[in-house]
Amino acid sequence: MVASTAMEPSANAASSVPVRFETHPSRYQHWKLSFDGAVARLVMDVAEDAPLRPGYALKLNSYDLGVDIELADAVQRLRFEHPEVRSVVVTSGKDKIFCAGANIYMLGSSTHGFKVNFCKFTNETRLALEEACRESGQHYLAALNGVASGGGYELALACEEILLADDGNSAVSFPETPLLAVLPGTGGLTRLVDKRKVRRDLADVFCTLAEGVRGKRAQDYGLVDRVVPKSRFGEVVLERAAALAGATPDRAGPGVALPPLEVKRWEEGERLGADYRWVSLVVNRSTRVAEITVLAPDEPPPETPAALRRAGGELWALRAFRELDDALLDLRFNHPEAGLVLYRTRGDAGQVRAHDEALARMKDDWFAHEVLLAMKRVLKRLDLTARSAFALVEAGSCFAGSLFELTLAADRTYMLDGGDGEAAFVALSSLNFGALPMSNGLTRLETRFLGAPGRVAELAGRTGFMEAEEAREAGLVTFTPDGMDWEDEVRLAVEERVSLSPDALTGMEQNLRFAGPETLETKIFARLSAWQNWIFQRPNAVGERGALTMYGRPERPEFDWRRT
Amino acid sequence: MVASTAMEPSANAASSVPVRFETHPSRYQHWKLSFDGAVARLVMDVAEDAPLRPGYALKLNSYDLGVDIELADAVQRLRFEHPEVRSVVVTSGKDKIFCAGANIYMLGSSTHGFKVNFCKFTNETRLALEEACRESGQHYLAALNGVASGGGYELALACEEILLADDGNSAVSFPETPLLAVLPGTGGLTRLVDKRKVRRDLADVFCTLAEGVRGKRAQDYGLVDRVVPKSRFGEVVLERAAALAGATPDRAGPGVALPPLEVKRWEEGERLGADYRWVSLVVNRSTRVAEITVLAPDEPPPETPAALRRAGGELWALRAFRELDDALLDLRFNHPEAGLVLYRTRGDAGQVRAHDEALARMKDDWFAHEVLLAMKRVLKRLDLTARSAFALVEAGSCFAGSLFELTLAADRTYMLDGGDGEAAFVALSSLNFGALPMSNGLTRLETRFLGAPGRVAELAGRTGFMEAEEAREAGLVTFTPDGMDWEDEVRLAVEERVSLSPDALTGMEQNLRFAGPETLETKIFARLSAWQNWIFQRPNAVGERGALTMYGRPERPEFDWRRT
Repeated sequence: MVASTAMEPSANAASSVPVRFETHPSRYQHWKLSFDGAVARLVMDVAEDAPLRPGYALKLNSYDLGVDIELADAVQRLRFEHPEVRSVVVTSGKDKIFCAGANIYMLGSSTHGFKVNFCKFTNETRLALEEACRESGQHYLAALNGVASGGGYELALACEEILLADDGNSAVSFPETPLLAVLPGTGGLTRLVDKRKVRRDLADVFCTLAEGVRGKRAQDYGLVDRVVPKSRFGEVVLERAAALAGATPDRAGPGVALPPLEVKRWEEGERLGADYRWVSLVVNRSTRVAEITVLAPDEPPPETPAALRRAGGELWALRAFRELDDALLDLRFNHPEAGLVLYRTRGDAGQVRAHDEALARMKDDWFAHEVLLAMKRVLKRLDLTARSAFALVEAGSCFAGSLFELTLAADRTYMLDGGDGEAAFVALSSLNFGALPMSNGLTRLETRFLGAPGRVAELAGRTGFMEAEEAREAGLVTFTPDGMDWEDEVRLAVEERVSLSPDALTGMEQNLRFAGPETLETKIFARLSAWQNWIFQRPNAVGERGALTMYGRPERPEFDWRRT
Repeated sequence: MVASTAMEPSANAASSVPVRFETHPSRYQHWKLSFDGAVARLVMDVAEDAPLRPGYALKLNSYDLGVDIELADAVQRLRFEHPEVRSVVVTSGKDKIFCAGANIYMLGSSTHGFKVNFCKFTNETRLALEEACRESGQHYLAALNGVASGGGYELALACEEILLADDGNSAVSFPETPLLAVLPGTGGLTRLVDKRKVRRDLADVFCTLAEGVRGKRAQDYGLVDRVVPKSRFGEVVLERAAALAGATPDRAGPGVALPPLEVKRWEEGERLGADYRWVSLVVNRSTRVAEITVLAPDEPPPETPAALRRAGGELWALRAFRELDDALLDLRFNHPEAGLVLYRTRGDAGQVRAHDEALARMKDDWFAHEVLLAMKRVLKRLDLTARSAFALVEAGSCFAGSLFELTLAADRTYMLDGGDGEAAFVALSSLNFGALPMSNGLTRLETRFLGAPGRVAELAGRTGFMEAEEAREAGLVTFTPDGMDWEDEVRLAVEERVSLSPDALTGMEQNLRFAGPETLETKIFARLSAWQNWIFQRPNAVGERGALTMYGRPERPEFDWRRT
């Protein structure tokens, strides 16, 4: 038997054409976004002949990363650019099919790392959609006007309500296990039993029925909220969309446009990089170390909601964190070999805190609220990025408040003990105490101090800038070398880190980063994704005769029957 | 690059010499158990030349499954046979080494399935040890009189308190990531940040330091409770053992001996089996279906604690569940290809309920309490067994109370709707409502009805026997074919199940079986184990040039640097 990696596409297959994550509704190829007052319609109509990379056709509204990048963009823009929208109908533009899920040929021809990162991104998008329902009053309604299978049904599961047309054809299904020997890896199994609380024996039956379940049985099992006769489907969808929209208070317009990030990319020998307005990314291909530097704002924050709105998409917090998000995705998909990220900051820490406090003060303004939610999502993306992360707190850095979260998200922090000369400082702001929780529902400070919860309350009183010794004693940083030792100590730590097995580090970090309570979110990333990653390595799925590899061929897959 | 399975030992390597799980202190090769009043000493002194199978030497108190089978036996016997013991000192009989963890050469030469099941069993043993501290008043104290690395430190982490000798040599360490490119897979990472609540940056540092941490730093990091100078080590260990023992109420002796199970094993063509007193296991090697049948007790239960004690190890509940446990372990290790287990019962359901209620009534008696805890552990072992499970409720079966838990642990249940003729019944008992919780801390009924919690309270009132229709309406069974359809429907379901990919089923079942809250236990099995399983497939660990494969050779491992 030949295992997956023996036939895995070359290291460069994924990175030869870099994936870019910026898009705009005017350029969507696969979704149509339209508006009718408080109700938006997001219609999936995948262009079969426009895959992200050549080699497969996106038949039957199946999707690849390119389709999901547009969905992520739509979910984000709806929140900022269309505050008047209070419900979003997700439906299909194709006849008889809602969505066939992730494209199998795309999966079959992708590297292990790409598959894992693709699933992670689609999971993040669906969690953002659920967050929009919960936090932004934008309620998603899945209107299944055809078959929703695999990732198609998982998309529906992320919506707040699911309507299924009762037409003898429309069905929901998870054919992954029976047909492909993999798992529904985009949160489906978790949402089935934990979000919808479907009885586990019924879930077991459903997940092994390739053809899925339709009509009344789908409703009885709890797989959908309601089945609706085809003749009344459109009407009921509108009714339910209006009802969901009615439940939400208005958010005063106009919306805030999200401008392009205008990144300058460069390449110089072994180093390549991306310069944004507030963020820069440098990847060294020979050392496999990446550096992300975030600059502090250079002006005081807007002090009123009106001024905040005028700053709009150029507001430091929004733009800087959108840039950071783009850099993280660039790293994940285009630089898989960069194993360690060094986080640096530069600028006036006082300005960072001023911007944080302005947002905290105005948090009841919907736009400020959305900015905070966007920052939260980006920091979660960082927590979930499978790269080691060290924060380097040097003289001239500005790890304060929201940027201090970078050190808390990092696996460890080195802070220069500069003595009288070049001192480095860290500082907290209101945002460290609740607005930017992790996937486990706790703040990063709470997670850090699970063993000494009193510390968090005590830190809330420390409003000053802290030098290295104070920060170390407060448990906020890991190591505090002085100027003499700094360079050697950091260099050795970096060299040592990048010498370790990338897989062992990924597993170790994912286990150490999320102590404390579990949530739907941590369950999806920690349990479901880990099992999915395992299965994506198994010969029964991806081997020469594995089910994923053999899909669409006349021969049947061959299994090694041993259970583990 | 050649991946793991290409070089994996043959399917038969693990099963050619069956692993047996019964042992007795008089036959221990690796542990010495001694007693001094309320304090027991469990001394690890591994016989280097007595591995479970030939091919590696158990140097430096490293362990294999054989060593852990003895530990599991000791933990179980201490609870039943030595109720007077209130603290257990776990220490080493070797100089300078406490325990070097799982033997690397054993791991390197094992199949993927064996590695996974080995880790699962060792995890279960450590959880049983923690349960003894919590539920049985037997407090484990790890006295680290030497280096505790990898699984050695994980064993210490499972103890209630850890003392480390401060002698310039004794240390705790997790060399898995830096040296072997795998994870500490026996709960170590989870216990570090979730049980001991070690700060995650310090945990990160610790887990990447091959040589580990010793002395005061180990205490400062929170890795051990106390470091003790070598000269006072023995004395302080005794002091702490006495203090831990003092905290616990007495349990009146004498203990209850656990008799041998006296299993008769047979083989007949494609079928082989094991007949115990109350349990039988049949494995059909050609259909890959196993059947486990449990018989009801044939006499009324003892009605007083004294009578219960007289029944002792022959008490139905204790013996039947010990037999079931042995059958499950036999399945896991010796019959990896049996993908589906059919659970059946036979006998007088009224007697099952009578025995359940007797135990429930006497639950404040330590022996009754221990029997209930043993039943709980066996049912958890069933939940965690990576095989599909169907329960078949036929005429003459006795799925009542504790045996009804078998149906709740199964992935689905078929119940015969016998009409007026051969009716099948199910029934509940007190034990379904709290005494036998799952790893997630909920009862199986609570987990089943997460979406309709009122159901559980309502079911508590149903004391009668239920026929198929009533059971189905109550949500207790999945399908209720009548006598005409029974045979075909069950046969088709069985055939379909065993045709699916074993890996996809394992991942699916593990995600569907544990909805609801997460605990240390579910985190270990769901998150940590899943990542460990993944890593055990990765070429960076188990490939031809992977770190686990190359361990002990002069060349360095070679890594594929791509992060996932």
